[in-house]
Amino acid sequence: MTNILLSGANGNMGRAVTRTVENNDKVKITAGYDINTVKNSDFPVYDNLDEVKEPFDVIIDFSHPSVFDSILEFSVKTKTPAVICTTGLSGEQISKMKAASKKAPIFFSANMSLGVNLLIDLVCKAAKLLDGSFDIEIIEKHHNQKLDAPSGTALAIADAISDAVSFDTEYIYDRHNVRKKRDKSEIGIHAVRGGTIVGEHDVIFAGNDEIIEIKHSASSKEVFAVGAVKAAVFMKGKPCGMYDMKDLIEQS
Amino acid sequence: MTNILLSGANGNMGRAVTRTVENNDKVKITAGYDINTVKNSDFPVYDNLDEVKEPFDVIIDFSHPSVFDSILEFSVKTKTPAVICTTGLSGEQISKMKAASKKAPIFFSANMSLGVNLLIDLVCKAAKLLDGSFDIEIIEKHHNQKLDAPSGTALAIADAISDAVSFDTEYIYDRHNVRKKRDKSEIGIHAVRGGTIVGEHDVIFAGNDEIIEIKHSASSKEVFAVGAVKAAVFMKGKPCGMYDMKDLIEQS
Amino acid sequence: MTNILLSGANGNMGRAVTRTVENNDKVKITAGYDINTVKNSDFPVYDNLDEVKEPFDVIIDFSHPSVFDSILEFSVKTKTPAVICTTGLSGEQISKMKAASKKAPIFFSANMSLGVNLLIDLVCKAAKLLDGSFDIEIIEKHHNQKLDAPSGTALAIADAISDAVSFDTEYIYDRHNVRKKRDKSEIGIHAVRGGTIVGEHDVIFAGNDEIIEIKHSASSKEVFAVGAVKAAVFMKGKPCGMYDMKDLIEQS
Amino acid sequence: MTNILLSGANGNMGRAVTRTVENNDKVKITAGYDINTVKNSDFPVYDNLDEVKEPFDVIIDFSHPSVFDSILEFSVKTKTPAVICTTGLSGEQISKMKAASKKAPIFFSANMSLGVNLLIDLVCKAAKLLDGSFDIEIIEKHHNQKLDAPSGTALAIADAISDAVSFDTEYIYDRHNVRKKRDKSEIGIHAVRGGTIVGEHDVIFAGNDEIIEIKHSASSKEVFAVGAVKAAVFMKGKPCGMYDMKDLIEQS
Repeated sequence: MTNILLSGANGNMGRAVTRTVENNDKVKITAGYDINTVKNSDFPVYDNLDEVKEPFDVIIDFSHPSVFDSILEFSVKTKTPAVICTTGLSGEQISKMKAASKKAPIFFSANMSLGVNLLIDLVCKAAKLLDGSFDIEIIEKHHNQKLDAPSGTALAIADAISDAVSFDTEYIYDRHNVRKKRDKSEIGIHAVRGGTIVGEHDVIFAGNDEIIEIKHSASSKEVFAVGAVKAAVFMKGKPCGMYDMKDLIEQS
Repeated sequence: MTNILLSGANGNMGRAVTRTVENNDKVKITAGYDINTVKNSDFPVYDNLDEVKEPFDVIIDFSHPSVFDSILEFSVKTKTPAVICTTGLSGEQISKMKAASKKAPIFFSANMSLGVNLLIDLVCKAAKLLDGSFDIEIIEKHHNQKLDAPSGTALAIADAISDAVSFDTEYIYDRHNVRKKRDKSEIGIHAVRGGTIVGEHDVIFAGNDEIIEIKHSASSKEVFAVGAVKAAVFMKGKPCGMYDMKDLIEQS
Repeated sequence: MTNILLSGANGNMGRAVTRTVENNDKVKITAGYDINTVKNSDFPVYDNLDEVKEPFDVIIDFSHPSVFDSILEFSVKTKTPAVICTTGLSGEQISKMKAASKKAPIFFSANMSLGVNLLIDLVCKAAKLLDGSFDIEIIEKHHNQKLDAPSGTALAIADAISDAVSFDTEYIYDRHNVRKKRDKSEIGIHAVRGGTIVGEHDVIFAGNDEIIEIKHSASSKEVFAVGAVKAAVFMKGKPCGMYDMKDLIEQS
Repeated sequence: MTNILLSGANGNMGRAVTRTVENNDKVKITAGYDINTVKNSDFPVYDNLDEVKEPFDVIIDFSHPSVFDSILEFSVKTKTPAVICTTGLSGEQISKMKAASKKAPIFFSANMSLGVNLLIDLVCKAAKLLDGSFDIEIIEKHHNQKLDAPSGTALAIADAISDAVSFDTEYIYDRHNVRKKRDKSEIGIHAVRGGTIVGEHDVIFAGNDEIIEIKHSASSKEVFAVGAVKAAVFMKGKPCGMYDMKDLIEQS
């Protein structure tokens, strides 16, 4: 059983974490921390960390950069692992976090979705094995309001592939009006935009009469809550240091 | 029963037509025409059309531009519908064909695959109905030796959509490094290249929390033989005039 | 411009209709009807239909079987087309509705999703054209809490295919432990269950070296609101009678 | 550079291996062995292994069970690694092979496709990590002439998943007419049959608002040739023992 102290308990993501844990008999939220102390679930919510009386093994933080420093301090003081899911931290805060990880176990990942991180892990394994014998293309799909293209995740996937393979890669975003055969070094990256698609990433390995596809699709931000809970279970009892989703996946 | 005179009987596509017809009890190849008169199947092969003694309702021509004129002449002389599948005809030959269609029923389509033509038909129906309420994107996939991008078929699909909808469309081949929301007029066209993929065309209609996809994939050129046989059945007994796959699909 | 009187304006689906119309300059909700008269948008909400002063061309009803009779009566009295989206109507109520359609234009469909109805329409067109030359299989995917299998929509698709083709069909739900080749009459129906999948229906036409797939996926019930608004625009000015999504699609 | 002695050089699969190697500058076929000694490529073909004068690092055997014993003997005698791809070996022959692996390095896998074996490896990794938090379903698609269902590969995937996860699994082939929620222990296995589909295996992990799919599709038996060449490169210089695709994938 992993007991969790949930920071940001009454925010959108905090409530998503609460829902995620509901039918999980290996994880329990014993106490919440939030400016808003309304009790929405079966655990108390405090606005002062020092008042928490319930036992906890790990802190999950889905709050706000403005309370980040106090969470970090509390993690170090109580020697409790902290899973930091708050977004929008400053460079200074990230440096502080790294420094704090010498005195407490800290988990932090750019993307808290277990699925996306697993996708990247599987894709790297495939890319390394197939190493140039299969052509690699990435198709990402997002809603029509998204401003940037390709998605940060698509680029992260392409970068991870580039690290995994033995040859130099080149990212190709457009092939129209160019008459030439595909070069082995190409990674085609295609940004599909339409409707309300939350997020899909599809990596295609095309070989001789054989195709392998690895695909992830998300239909809500609930997936970050699921990743946070997985991370909390992973962090229980860990020694001081920085950890991320890659560690979680590799050690599972 | 439709009896067929098969021109180009001993070529690759002629043999594909023969295989296609094997288990079809509504279609029979009664005679072949080819420079090479080897008998590979249960019908005779002639190198002179005037020697054909077997009955035939329709001519399928998968031969060569050099014999095209004699096929056309024979079709007119015998008042027999001809399904012209030979590729690489000159502009002059196509004009001759149109002129001949006043005296004989002629079937001719840019792409003989029934599937691709059906795809275009279904896509147009969907585009017309959804008319701007769903975003449309096209993904085509071909092997890594293909020189051009996007495929001619992808462009034909986009053109057909543009005709079907009530608004002006714009084809988008690249979105990277452009920070902007998708415009309703966009049709994204993505050319994936890899391995030995024979040909896939996927049309995505993305709306509010709803996606419709219509997809065609071919794994060999056998599909052109299947289309030719369908066309032959369609043409039996037709009056003079030009016909194509669109007519076949709309009248089925 | 189509002016709408929205019954059930403050329910979940009523609010979904309101959101759907927001950026549509051809449709306007001029008044709402609900027991709860809170004004959440820019139109007034009445709890008495006779008090509605605003002009309206069509009524959309997303309310409750208990108010259905009054809606129907109001539609007949005001000669206004009604789009009935309320679910759980009794057999008696449906009979009443059909009777009322002699005096008012009534739109009613088992599934209000435009996408699903379009899917069925496209699938029938393809099935009719390919008529036995391609094998047809249906894969549906839903969340792990769904009790029944296959989905009602999958069966509706299979029934529509059976009507469209010239041969007798047989629905196959299980092939394991049976050693035999696929028969032409089979329609395989596969019920995938997992996670929180809202609903996917994928119809596969597999032929000689060629596959056509038509697929619909929904990620929320928002799709019913979109269908209702499309239906309202379609119904404006229609003569008395019963209408459904099939009419809408065929006449578009 | 890996030099290969190709047994069964003039058979279908032998010629596929030859084509596979053509543009690969790290692998070279230096000699062939076949009853039919026609020289179809730039290496000599012998009908007696003792006459082979060219250097070779690895033997690839795509011949026939009747010549298997002589290949094995030659491998032991020359201390050369052998990649055994011949199918239909008897239980006795497999026992002989295992005994021989004490004196020579032998590679043998139930399925020589690198892609299918990679799929299984990736699926196991995902199943182990997600361990019960995602529902797993397998869809396999094959041509309409296939007698058995589900495919042996689909069952091999399900068995590998069952070994990887911490809970007991149950294979579900049919859900129709059973009214119940999906149980966590279920692995749904769906056998789609249609047209000329060579082989597809799709493994779906469906979680909370998140889906991961890993998919393999083959369009010809060429894939076994590619796997054999990969295995040959892997086996060069290996010590005595039995090896299979799993070793190749894990050590890459």
